[in-house]
Formats: sequence, structure tokens, C-alpha cells
Amino acid sequence: MTATPPRQKKAPQRYAIIGTGAIGGYYGARLQQAGCDVHFLLRSDHGHVSHHGLTVDSVGGDFVLSEVQAYSDPAQMPPIDVAIIALKTTQNYLLPKLLPALNDGAVVLTLQNGLGVEADLARWVAPEQILSGLCFICSNKVGPGHIRHLDYGKVLLGAYSATRQPRPITELMRAIAADFTQANIPIDLTDDLFIARWRKLVWNVPYNGLSVVLDATTTEMMADQGLRSLIAALMAEVVSAANAWGEKLSGGKNRGIPQAFITEMLSATAKMKPYRTSMKIDHDEGRPLEVEAILGNPVRAATEIGVAVPQMEMLYQQVKFLANR
Amino acid sequence: MTATPPRQKKAPQRYAIIGTGAIGGYYGARLQQAGCDVHFLLRSDHGHVSHHGLTVDSVGGDFVLSEVQAYSDPAQMPPIDVAIIALKTTQNYLLPKLLPALNDGAVVLTLQNGLGVEADLARWVAPEQILSGLCFICSNKVGPGHIRHLDYGKVLLGAYSATRQPRPITELMRAIAADFTQANIPIDLTDDLFIARWRKLVWNVPYNGLSVVLDATTTEMMADQGLRSLIAALMAEVVSAANAWGEKLSGGKNRGIPQAFITEMLSATAKMKPYRTSMKIDHDEGRPLEVEAILGNPVRAATEIGVAVPQMEMLYQQVKFLANR
Repeated sequence: MTATPPRQKKAPQRYAIIGTGAIGGYYGARLQQAGCDVHFLLRSDHGHVSHHGLTVDSVGGDFVLSEVQAYSDPAQMPPIDVAIIALKTTQNYLLPKLLPALNDGAVVLTLQNGLGVEADLARWVAPEQILSGLCFICSNKVGPGHIRHLDYGKVLLGAYSATRQPRPITELMRAIAADFTQANIPIDLTDDLFIARWRKLVWNVPYNGLSVVLDATTTEMMADQGLRSLIAALMAEVVSAANAWGEKLSGGKNRGIPQAFITEMLSATAKMKPYRTSMKIDHDEGRPLEVEAILGNPVRAATEIGVAVPQMEMLYQQVKFLANR
Repeated sequence: MTATPPRQKKAPQRYAIIGTGAIGGYYGARLQQAGCDVHFLLRSDHGHVSHHGLTVDSVGGDFVLSEVQAYSDPAQMPPIDVAIIALKTTQNYLLPKLLPALNDGAVVLTLQNGLGVEADLARWVAPEQILSGLCFICSNKVGPGHIRHLDYGKVLLGAYSATRQPRPITELMRAIAADFTQANIPIDLTDDLFIARWRKLVWNVPYNGLSVVLDATTTEMMADQGLRSLIAALMAEVVSAANAWGEKLSGGKNRGIPQAFITEMLSATAKMKPYRTSMKIDHDEGRPLEVEAILGNPVRAATEIGVAVPQMEMLYQQVKFLANR
């Protein structure tokens, strides 16, 4: 065994995709298409993808990668610079067995939804190595190695802070963003991942939760005036919790989510095509739901900061009940 | 046309059953079985019941009334002393066409669920003529003129007060109670109908609402610890609203529902056989749900007295959405 040579500054990043499904498969395929060195970890699809590669039907143009570097065992992967975690949070218990060897200065970039996913990762990875990409994308896996990218796709990239403080954008983050941009993946950078996660929850909590409880698409929900009020009220609870944290962490400075963001989310959603949320798709297909990341952890974080969130709490209990059936 | 002779004090009451379904059919049949003079108003079952009478399968003993006084037109009925309203509240818009002629001193006794049902009636009947019977019964209509009485059956009888004040128990109420008792219908009398209705809502709000939203029986709900907490929290909202009203109406005197009633309801329900609520049965059978009487009116009453009921409000919006599908 020879020692890995130190990574050259500005050298191309070597990517691993841990979990080649709807999200990881799409972003990984885009990166490889743009010439990046991408190594895909797969479980059930490994045989198929080894032989046939990946197929992406995308609103941005269909493409096939007939050859990909596919692995079923992370120990077979070369040392990685950017390990992208695209498992469902419900599979995080598998993480210690799935992480590849990392180069010096490497990062683990989680694309997972919800709150508390970095803390999960930090059990096995140094906190300063953790980045998060919040994905605003509608994408499904429709068959082995076959991804259907229906809409959107933007990523918001930020660095994890165990103390929930802002963290400056690094050179490596900019290098990753450059790769994503070249791969036709719109990407923004943020120095405040904590608030960015809460902003995403403003949408995810009501729509993911209610779509499961009421068996409804976003369009069906937005057509009902009472539900629109309920969604706005749930969003207001999320914003209150976020802002209580923001205020505490910043010593009262203006760190948080403006109320206008609620109106913005509501009218953007009303204009969307009928959308089946990721939690609803998981529920329809009998897969475990990301109840804790999307509902349980936000409820507990709100409670910790002393903000009452009775409607989020109710939604959490309802979804958990349905998920446990 | 001759004038109706004045009703003799202590003379037998003549009953009408307006709506001969699961509830009206059961109580009416019991009264006739005990020798009361009962006149049944029916719609779809009129032909069948005119020819074949009523069949009751009851935990308290099955029986058949091969001949009943059945009507499809209330104008054909003789003048009535006690007109029992056993329609679903969702059919209350039909009431002005369904009320029979009433004797002097007659009462209209509604067996309907929820809050605000007397105010509905008071649009066509003098408030002082209105009584309410809160029914604690599990009973279904399983075919034309065929009632299945599964469990319970107690009635709590009180007089309506438009000002929500207690009203003393009258001789006529005692006479009705005597008839019910003779008919093997357990009955209690209350001078505080307003609080009695709220007490019933302590059970009805969470179990009726959640059974529809979560498609679950009482037993399934009580087996889930998170849901038990949610049910207790919903009950606490109902109790808060009731007690705020009680305090205001009584000038701070001890009129309301003790907190211990919540624990009592929870443990009684945990011990019940698996129970499909009336709202769930209506939902399963595609019938309109009593959303406003059981959820909407209590939410509005809580808001009116200044008590926040975010979880009741959420349940109301969820059930209304599902009911409007």
C-alpha cells in the first residue's frame, strides 16, 4: 500500500455518490457528464448499472452514461475528495459501513433533507469536514439505474457548524460549486446553513406532512381555502422557531426568516404543477418516511428554544402514526 | 278542522321520530315497544317500514315491531307532544319541511351531536320548546328499517337556553325520562346542557376527527403513545374552551369540566372494544360528515371566548378538506 500523494490545490475533485437513487443518481450523472471523476456506490442496482450505466430522463435533456464507475463495496473505491451522501435519512444507521476512504482535506457533502442530518453524520465524520447541499429538485428513480428528473434542480451549498453559527464559504466549496455549475446544476452558496435548513423546512413541514396525512398533491391542498390557512399557520410556526434560534444565536441581530417568505412560498406553490411530495411518494411506495428529519427534529428544536408549535407537533404525531402502520 | 283539545297533565306523550335511522329508529322502536304512541317519519325506508315494520338487533335483546305508524309526510301526522329530531345535522336545512304539528306545551327534542344544533332548530321552534338528548350509543342502520344496536345507549336530557345558562328540569322532562326508563333506555337529566355538550365534545372532537384523518379505530389510536398524547392535548383544548365559557357565564363560579375528566375519558376509551366513530362510519360510507357541528362550531365558540385551539382548528381544516373531496 502506498501513501496517497497530497492533493494539489485546484486539482479536480474526485467524487463519490453514496446512494445512487433519485437524487444521488441525478447529480452524480450530471457531474460525470461534465467530465468529473465520479464513483457510484449502489446496492440493489449495482449489477445493472455496472453493465448498462445510468439513464437520465431530464427536463434539461435526456442522456445516457453507458459506463460508470460502480461499486457495491465502498472499500473498493479510491480515496475520495467529495463524498456525496444521498441516502434517505432513514438509512443513516448504515452510514458507518458506507463511507469511503477520504483524502486529506476531503469533505462529506450530505444532500439529505430535514434537520439534524449533519449531527447524525458527525458521529462518524469530523464536523468541520461536513458540507450540506439543500436540493430543490423533483426527481424519481423509475427503474434500475434509471432516473427521471421532472423539475427544478438547484442546490444550496453551506458548511456545517455544530454550534449553529454561520461559517464562511471556503475555496473547496467554490471549487465544488464550479463543478456543479459546469454540470448544469444551478448552485448557490450560503454562509448560514442553519437558517437555510429552516427556510427549507418552511415548505417541507406543511407540504410533506399534510400530503401524507391528507393523501393530496400540492395543487389539491392549495385549492382549499381552509388548508391554505392551515399551511400558512404551520409555516408561521416553523418561522417562529427559526427566528427564536436566530435571535438567540446572533445575540438579537437580524438572523432569521422574514415573514414575507411565507407569502412567497405559498404563492410559488400555488403556481407549481401538481406536485407529489417526496414523503408522499415514499408513503405511496411503502418505503420508510423521513419523519424524524423533517418533522420530529424540527419539533424538538422548537421545543428546545421554548417556541410552542402545536400544529407541527400534531402533524408529527399524525405522520408518525401513519408511518408505523 | 277541530281544535286540538288541551293536553291533560300526565297524559301519555305522543312521540314523533323525525329521521328513523340508526339513532331515531332505535330509540323510537324502544319507546313503542314499551307502549308509547310513536309516529315515525321516514324517507327512503317509508315503503319498506310501512309493510314490514322495524327490526332491531340489540345487545339488550333483539325485537321486531311488525306494525309501526310510518309517514313520509309530516303533515299526515297527528299533533305531537315530543318531536324527536334524529336527522344528521348535515340535513338540518330540511327541518322546516319535516316538523310535524305540535300540541300546546309540546317540545322538540333533538338527539343531534355537536355544538350549535339547538340554535339551528331555534330558527323554526321557540327556544323554550327545545330539549336536547345527548346520546351515548353505538348503533347503525344495516338495512331498510333494520337497526343494529351494538353497545351503550344512555341519554342525557337537558333543556336549551339561548343564553347558555342552566335551566331547571321540568315536569315534562321528568315525564319523558319516565317513558325512556320504561323503554329500557338509561337516561339522566341535567340542568346544564351547555356544559354537558362540551363534555361530550371532549370525546367527540379528538376521536371523531382523528378517526377520519388517520383512518383508524379508537383501539388503533390508543395503541400509539404519540397519538394518546395528541388526543389528550386536543381534549385539553376542548376543556379550556368549555371552562372559559363556564367561567364567563357563571361570573367565575365553578361551572365547567374538571381536568380529571380527560384522564377518565382516555382510560375509558382505552378499555373500549375497537370502535369506529360515527364520523368514520359516515366517511367510509360516503355520507356527508358532521364537520361543522362537531368541529367547526366548537372551534368558533373557542375563538369567540378568546381561547386558542390550534390543534382543534387543524383537525377541523383537515376533516373539512377530506369531507369536501
